[in-house]
Amino acid sequence: MIIDCHGHYTTEPQQLKDYRERQKLEVEKDPFHQAEEVDLKITDDQLRESVEGAQLKFQRERGTDRTIFSPRASGMGHHIGNASTSLTWSIQSNNLIYRLTQLYPNNFIGVCQLPQSRGTDLRASIGELERCVEQLGFIGCNLNPDTSGGSFDLPPLGDRYWYPFYEKMCELRVPAMIHVSAACNPAFHSTGSYYLSADTTAFMQMLTSDLFSDFPDLKFIIPHGGGAVPFHWGRFRGLADMLKRPPLDELLLDNVFFDTCVYHQKGIDLLVDVMPIKNILFASEMVGAVRGIDPETGHYFDDTKRYIVGNRKLSEADRMQIFEGNARRVYPRLAEALGN
Amino acid sequence: MIIDCHGHYTTEPQQLKDYRERQKLEVEKDPFHQAEEVDLKITDDQLRESVEGAQLKFQRERGTDRTIFSPRASGMGHHIGNASTSLTWSIQSNNLIYRLTQLYPNNFIGVCQLPQSRGTDLRASIGELERCVEQLGFIGCNLNPDTSGGSFDLPPLGDRYWYPFYEKMCELRVPAMIHVSAACNPAFHSTGSYYLSADTTAFMQMLTSDLFSDFPDLKFIIPHGGGAVPFHWGRFRGLADMLKRPPLDELLLDNVFFDTCVYHQKGIDLLVDVMPIKNILFASEMVGAVRGIDPETGHYFDDTKRYIVGNRKLSEADRMQIFEGNARRVYPRLAEALGN
Repeated sequence: MIIDCHGHYTTEPQQLKDYRERQKLEVEKDPFHQAEEVDLKITDDQLRESVEGAQLKFQRERGTDRTIFSPRASGMGHHIGNASTSLTWSIQSNNLIYRLTQLYPNNFIGVCQLPQSRGTDLRASIGELERCVEQLGFIGCNLNPDTSGGSFDLPPLGDRYWYPFYEKMCELRVPAMIHVSAACNPAFHSTGSYYLSADTTAFMQMLTSDLFSDFPDLKFIIPHGGGAVPFHWGRFRGLADMLKRPPLDELLLDNVFFDTCVYHQKGIDLLVDVMPIKNILFASEMVGAVRGIDPETGHYFDDTKRYIVGNRKLSEADRMQIFEGNARRVYPRLAEALGN
Repeated sequence: MIIDCHGHYTTEPQQLKDYRERQKLEVEKDPFHQAEEVDLKITDDQLRESVEGAQLKFQRERGTDRTIFSPRASGMGHHIGNASTSLTWSIQSNNLIYRLTQLYPNNFIGVCQLPQSRGTDLRASIGELERCVEQLGFIGCNLNPDTSGGSFDLPPLGDRYWYPFYEKMCELRVPAMIHVSAACNPAFHSTGSYYLSADTTAFMQMLTSDLFSDFPDLKFIIPHGGGAVPFHWGRFRGLADMLKRPPLDELLLDNVFFDTCVYHQKGIDLLVDVMPIKNILFASEMVGAVRGIDPETGHYFDDTKRYIVGNRKLSEADRMQIFEGNARRVYPRLAEALGN
């Protein structure tokens, strides 16, 4: 079985986008606007139509089996609006993911967006995580380490600010993918530099903290191959040494995992050569950041399965770990969601 | 000849550090403090002592010939103080580099720090660049794309804000290494995540701009192997395609170069495998970010010459390009500084 642990619902029906635009207008007029849940009247047929020609088509064409699916990352927009709009926006977004998992139980497994919001603690996020895991059968969440959209002004991930949320993650037995939303800072391009910078930054925050002594069962997936981390693995090993931290495998490789959203063969070759196989989870992020066909190969840039299969060093057992085994370990609720 | 294009004066005499601390206290008391140049009474012997057991020792041990040398990057501190303190601090720092190039003309070639300062244009930087190139024989500069120390609130490098400085660079025939200073933002670890994030971000700013159409002769070195760029080269090629930019080799590979400050063999192997050889400049950043010995190899992490020599695909001609030829092309004033 091939499990893609990183897919976003980037083909949402127009009603959802319109709803969000209305919300933005409301909070522009009134920053304290109290948002309401509304019935967007999105039909099952509209949901089917939105994925049939995209995510499902690619699953079929590429021969992947399941996508661990969450709302569009760039759409989370935690820097926009207030706690109330963030909550209703997250609920609407997560509920659509839930409906897709019900329409396509053999294709999608849910992961939720969180109602993080500037200047608030994580209570609302804890509540929405509980709802999504306990009532909707979701198996994880996307946690945003920089809700400013590019100013990096939240406490680092080792700070106690995050601890109540980590406690709930451990209690519910769900991991988090560390994932920022769109940048609103003109210095950054969201998918080109902001995502990769946030990935690298999150890793270093973990390296310099005692997070995993406090939460031995906490698990994070760092997407996009871990940003710059595998390419600079020597630098990080050397910095851990200089900072008198334990070796990285002891310090965090039971807790931190890297996905395979790296869009060329040589990048994937480095990733699987540098990181232990047990720390690599298959992912493509389709339909996502890079949607074109690589003129050098004739295949989609984000058809990452080809790079895993194309790597010459991986054994069949290694590939099975990357495609399925590691995901089952990192997402303890996956087995149940898969019905086995 | 082996030219290390990225070395910082990280072993400064105590007087220089004390001077900077006094400056910080002065601007704390009075934000409009007008700094004065003072004679720090640093002797030639003190300068010799500061590098004999460090940079020069490593040059000898590792068999490198010249270091393109600049003030400590993390010490530039462009977020600290005001235009006046930034200017005098830069002058003091650059003058010590100059004295070292005079004491050791066969070891060091100067590159300057710039007196960038929050809320100012680049006139002072233009002036200091002119002084360092024309009077001190320097061959380049370090340009800071984020003088906030981690909030990324300057205009992107393609913005007209930077153009007067680029004009001067082209007129003087000098390249810039893109290099942030220490982070003052607790989200970042300076050498672990901030440098790499800024490198990646600078590259994406270049990818999305028409900078090199406007300045065909402008040249930038992105340090630390280009941050995350080579590892994600497929992503950047795909994004250029999606954004309707020309192919990356046309768009920027006559203007953007990557150094070899990547501290493990597999990282260097990826760099030289992915990037054209003509775009790679040898560098170690010694004595810099990572100072220890890699227990896996028994050699210093930052002894990057070993990784270039250890790579199995590079021809002797490739290595000569990386060690010397490319630097001569990227730094047009290097030949003169070398006396040939």
